[in-house]
Amino acid sequence: MPIISTAGSRFADTVYADRLLRATAEAATRSIAALLVTPSADYEYLLGYRPPAMERLTCLVLPVDGVPALVVPRLEEPLARHAIGALADGIEIVPWEETDDPFQLVKGRLRGTLRVGLQDQMWSRFVLRLRALLDPAELVDASPAIGAVRRIKQPDEIDRLRAAASAADEAMLAITAERLSGRSEEEVSRRINELLLTAGHDTAQFAIVASGPNSASPHHSPGERVIQAGDAVVLDIGGTRDAYCSDTTRTAFVGEPPADFAAMYEVLRMAQAAACAAIAPGIPAREIDRAARQIIEEAGYGDAFMHRTGHGIGLETHEEPYIVESNDEPLVAGHAFSIEPGIYIADQWGARIEDIVVCTDAGGERLNTNSTELIVVE
Amino acid sequence: MPIISTAGSRFADTVYADRLLRATAEAATRSIAALLVTPSADYEYLLGYRPPAMERLTCLVLPVDGVPALVVPRLEEPLARHAIGALADGIEIVPWEETDDPFQLVKGRLRGTLRVGLQDQMWSRFVLRLRALLDPAELVDASPAIGAVRRIKQPDEIDRLRAAASAADEAMLAITAERLSGRSEEEVSRRINELLLTAGHDTAQFAIVASGPNSASPHHSPGERVIQAGDAVVLDIGGTRDAYCSDTTRTAFVGEPPADFAAMYEVLRMAQAAACAAIAPGIPAREIDRAARQIIEEAGYGDAFMHRTGHGIGLETHEEPYIVESNDEPLVAGHAFSIEPGIYIADQWGARIEDIVVCTDAGGERLNTNSTELIVVE
Repeated sequence: MPIISTAGSRFADTVYADRLLRATAEAATRSIAALLVTPSADYEYLLGYRPPAMERLTCLVLPVDGVPALVVPRLEEPLARHAIGALADGIEIVPWEETDDPFQLVKGRLRGTLRVGLQDQMWSRFVLRLRALLDPAELVDASPAIGAVRRIKQPDEIDRLRAAASAADEAMLAITAERLSGRSEEEVSRRINELLLTAGHDTAQFAIVASGPNSASPHHSPGERVIQAGDAVVLDIGGTRDAYCSDTTRTAFVGEPPADFAAMYEVLRMAQAAACAAIAPGIPAREIDRAARQIIEEAGYGDAFMHRTGHGIGLETHEEPYIVESNDEPLVAGHAFSIEPGIYIADQWGARIEDIVVCTDAGGERLNTNSTELIVVE
Repeated sequence: MPIISTAGSRFADTVYADRLLRATAEAATRSIAALLVTPSADYEYLLGYRPPAMERLTCLVLPVDGVPALVVPRLEEPLARHAIGALADGIEIVPWEETDDPFQLVKGRLRGTLRVGLQDQMWSRFVLRLRALLDPAELVDASPAIGAVRRIKQPDEIDRLRAAASAADEAMLAITAERLSGRSEEEVSRRINELLLTAGHDTAQFAIVASGPNSASPHHSPGERVIQAGDAVVLDIGGTRDAYCSDTTRTAFVGEPPADFAAMYEVLRMAQAAACAAIAPGIPAREIDRAARQIIEEAGYGDAFMHRTGHGIGLETHEEPYIVESNDEPLVAGHAFSIEPGIYIADQWGARIEDIVVCTDAGGERLNTNSTELIVVE
């Protein structure tokens, strides 16, 4: 019986009450009559705790008109009641027994609702059950409504993102102060996981170590390759602290970098700085992508930068807003996202630089504050 | 850019080729023309590696007739190609660019298929996109087809479950040899996470520590409560080793247990032993539940055992088959599941005993081998 609590310490209950109200209002403007939210970052955002996603249905039923209900397995009722604290005054907790059908309980709370928003990571087995049971209701993605609230970080959330970023910066400084040559990628990855925890993360989530030709694979899985002199090494690391995520990348070179790598890296560094400098409220996300991409294209590396420039970050490592060519959404103060261009030359080497940046009224504020210069390691 | 690899070392490629064939055959007998499998334990089971579930679509398209395709973001193509090894000879890898629509690529591979099975944890945002795009195809749950293969563990898988169970047993012996009184539940939970890793797990997944009145909450989340003399303490712990899960529970008592607790515990112990003894091929799962429940009911604790007796275990902590009253599926050699009755008296105390057991031709084989006697701790 697992319970994986990724939740950090709670904010005040009024914070969650306010989020529930705002998500409901966003649903109403989209003609959605009720939101169904299963355990996920959205659930944690709205209720302040996060049970594991599992086969027993736990579902927040959030109607635009009426009292919210929390449908939970009876054996998790004490946990839910304890976790939501004073919020329980405004939410009806509806426990179900092992032999009940919890979907009928959900249906009963919806009372003929015709347009229902589903949390966007709800399991397909639940979606298919609801599809059959709620026919002819229209089922739509709840993420535009919940995301409209969640993507604008409040000051307390930015403080947590900053604390997580500082912890990641500390881990990055620590690993790049060590000798890397002679160690396998796997070994260095494990060491980074330790350093992420030592630096104050609650969980270590990932530690990409991509060396030599592997550095040309943006999502390389660290393996047995032993790092050696002449390698570029891309280090992309992150964890959670108080439920909020860190995510930062630096590129190291083992020994003196050759001139062509150094030149390529400087292009990347300028591109990353240009994207950060372009951030301001009202600027479309795609223009931030463009700011980085243009510099890389003009230097002749356009084909070697095959991913978007960044992703939003908060309770999840990847969330809205995405900094990608296809996103014309204007930035708003409180958006927090990565700026992480990369240049990848197949079979040879690659490099990436990634910082988390918050859009403020005064422009972009980097939460990762380490230097972006190429790091020479032993 | 996170990559969370929960995968253990791979079996031989022929193992995955065989699983792909068998899942396809199971789909065919259910009139499903193609399976769509996004990153999940099913994906790992079929391909031997597990990318994180994320907003970029990665999807195995497994038609009953035709060549399987793996639709992946271009930046994960090198990882996918490397990870599936020689399997790539029989699977077409279809990369997509950041500005492509990967759902159209999936649709193109289905060629008018009328009944499509969706991996049961696929995100609702993907399900809703596919629902709109594939209309009028019928979308059904893929888990009966994939689960029919996956729920019967092969000897190599049982070896891994046994190794994980041994590691959990070792951690349980270690924590119950320590003094618990005077420490908070949270502190003991963190210590168990360390001990799970020390004992050979790759990841520590959960460590429920429910003390005193909290022991009456089956899914209690460890908190600030300090353990003290006279407490029952339910310890429910698990992790993964080589991708397979462990999950075991023991109940400790701080100091001499009162006679009424000891008597209640003995009922529980007999119930757990009776359920283990009832296991044999051909016996319906619900009869295993009944074997435990009957003893608890006859002793007058029926209402205090409010959850099912067990759950399947393998690449996930909870999977098919479920040992629950509503499941009349007959057991088969190779089924692996927990036997974990509990008795919970609100505001006072609770107890649970959990072992992982494999159904063999000769009956149930416990993979957890620690004594089930009540553990007296300081």
